[in-house]
Amino acid sequence: MPRINNAQLPPEVESHHDVVLAVHGGAGVMTRGSMTAAVEKNFLSKLEGALKAGFKHLKKGGSSVDAVEAAVRYLEDCPVFNAGRGAVLTSNGRIELDASIMDGASGLAGAVACVTTVKNPVSCARAVMERTHHVLLAGSGAEQFAQKQKLEIVDPSYFITDRQWEKFERFKSAHEVGSNGNGKSITGTKVKKKAAKKDIKKYGTVGAVARDNKGNLAAATSTGGIIGQKFGRVGDSPIVGAGVYADNATCAVSSTGQGEYFMRSLTAYDVAALMKYAGMPVAQAAYKAIHISLTGKGAQGGIIVLDAKGECVMPFNSEGMFRGCITKKGEVFTSIYR
Amino acid sequence: MPRINNAQLPPEVESHHDVVLAVHGGAGVMTRGSMTAAVEKNFLSKLEGALKAGFKHLKKGGSSVDAVEAAVRYLEDCPVFNAGRGAVLTSNGRIELDASIMDGASGLAGAVACVTTVKNPVSCARAVMERTHHVLLAGSGAEQFAQKQKLEIVDPSYFITDRQWEKFERFKSAHEVGSNGNGKSITGTKVKKKAAKKDIKKYGTVGAVARDNKGNLAAATSTGGIIGQKFGRVGDSPIVGAGVYADNATCAVSSTGQGEYFMRSLTAYDVAALMKYAGMPVAQAAYKAIHISLTGKGAQGGIIVLDAKGECVMPFNSEGMFRGCITKKGEVFTSIYR
Repeated sequence: MPRINNAQLPPEVESHHDVVLAVHGGAGVMTRGSMTAAVEKNFLSKLEGALKAGFKHLKKGGSSVDAVEAAVRYLEDCPVFNAGRGAVLTSNGRIELDASIMDGASGLAGAVACVTTVKNPVSCARAVMERTHHVLLAGSGAEQFAQKQKLEIVDPSYFITDRQWEKFERFKSAHEVGSNGNGKSITGTKVKKKAAKKDIKKYGTVGAVARDNKGNLAAATSTGGIIGQKFGRVGDSPIVGAGVYADNATCAVSSTGQGEYFMRSLTAYDVAALMKYAGMPVAQAAYKAIHISLTGKGAQGGIIVLDAKGECVMPFNSEGMFRGCITKKGEVFTSIYR
Repeated sequence: MPRINNAQLPPEVESHHDVVLAVHGGAGVMTRGSMTAAVEKNFLSKLEGALKAGFKHLKKGGSSVDAVEAAVRYLEDCPVFNAGRGAVLTSNGRIELDASIMDGASGLAGAVACVTTVKNPVSCARAVMERTHHVLLAGSGAEQFAQKQKLEIVDPSYFITDRQWEKFERFKSAHEVGSNGNGKSITGTKVKKKAAKKDIKKYGTVGAVARDNKGNLAAATSTGGIIGQKFGRVGDSPIVGAGVYADNATCAVSSTGQGEYFMRSLTAYDVAALMKYAGMPVAQAAYKAIHISLTGKGAQGGIIVLDAKGECVMPFNSEGMFRGCITKKGEVFTSIYR
């Protein structure tokens, strides 16, 4: 197996130290210049808001689980990310939300898939972790559970923003199948398809990883899936080892990208496995999981990774990834592009 | 990390050579003498039937994916295992079936969760793998997909056997919550609970791993979950890396046991990770995943593992595991206890 030493790490794998919390707001096609300065600023301020929402808990001695839940709740409530309010719509114009959380101290995890009425899916995932013997609850069962747990329930319309509705209309019209009168199907114009394709390539999942005063790690991930998804598709976000992973002995990971590749490659757990079985430092392990394994499979995405010593890396092979981290002293770093 | 050499392998980890197909019918509390000789014989003959159903494909040059699908279909159709017909009932007396399949040559995988009308969930998992870009479809979406794919659809009553209905009644009466008139709840008698608990401790998931003429590996798993499960619980069976995994470079794995532990430990992928990152031979890697990791977490279950050279190990830490394998020459081995 090829060993990678620090000298081989490409410059885009920034390594941050003394980090207590990192967040991401998704990876994808976000070329420099495609967003206005005002839009970029808004994204960066939201990432900073999420970091501060989680940091508040850590500062007063809260757990890493509290911190990742608070950061992800903040991002779920932001309409600009594909999680909670502002999530993308499925092929039939519905919302299907997935979320997960993992506690690196206990090794426990919780997740929900295909929920449509739970305001903050990450909090429902936490309730699954802390109040059941299960890891993953799906669909109406998960919603019944959320109601029983007195979590905040909203009408599905709460999640739907004008921006996502427009994207959905674009998706629908690009994928509309009509007939040209000869029995052959005709689909939307190339232009429409191109615009819709660009929408698909934004993997706006959100996530957070944290390390608390006691050195305990945690990770959480939340998503609205991919635009126009069909058939109750479940991606990597609610899957332990794919979209989320945390273990004090290695690292905490939250993923974003083409979920199916992360599911087949167990990307989040793979970083931990490379650290514990191959003895790789966190930066090399994360680099290999994205820039060798994922890139080698022709897939796009990124991860945020934090180890027990506070080293944080956020590798991605897409054009951009909304990301940020905060150090123990409260120094904030946020970024979008490579 | 502690290295285990062959001399340290306990005798119960049987290692078989020149194997082309292995199957399991679940692990759990199956003490010697708790079943009549006739019942034992029936189980063993069903395992042999599954091995032969898969072997038929391998013999005529079929793929390992064909072989695991055929073996698991056979076990799904058998009413004595907790998968397909004969599956356990959920808390509200329903059937919820999960299944998965993975192709070690391509690294592709497919899975379904919470389906109630698809006669052979493993075939639906295969259709997800081969005919979509997705890995996991859940609930009614998965059923709509199955219908579109012209898979065999049955009424949910098809799956319910008298045996499982009786177990469900026992479970219900043991978990019935009444009132003693003082506003305090009273539950079923201790005796009932004990019987019901024993039912829960049978993890009757089924699975298969195979290696074909070309040396390609595949794995498949199918289950009815755990008796009385609530809230759309999804276990490890449809989760790549937990209940199923296959990669030609390492091994094929199918899991059975307390699913939540397998999900948090990524048990199936862990065997592969130990092989590729720690350089462990298949027998040691499988031994560590079950007898060190799983046992260390206080959980029960087992795995069947096959590597590209035809070495097959089937470690379990429960009292028994229905298991069997068949060699290239057609020699059959089946067993229940340690």
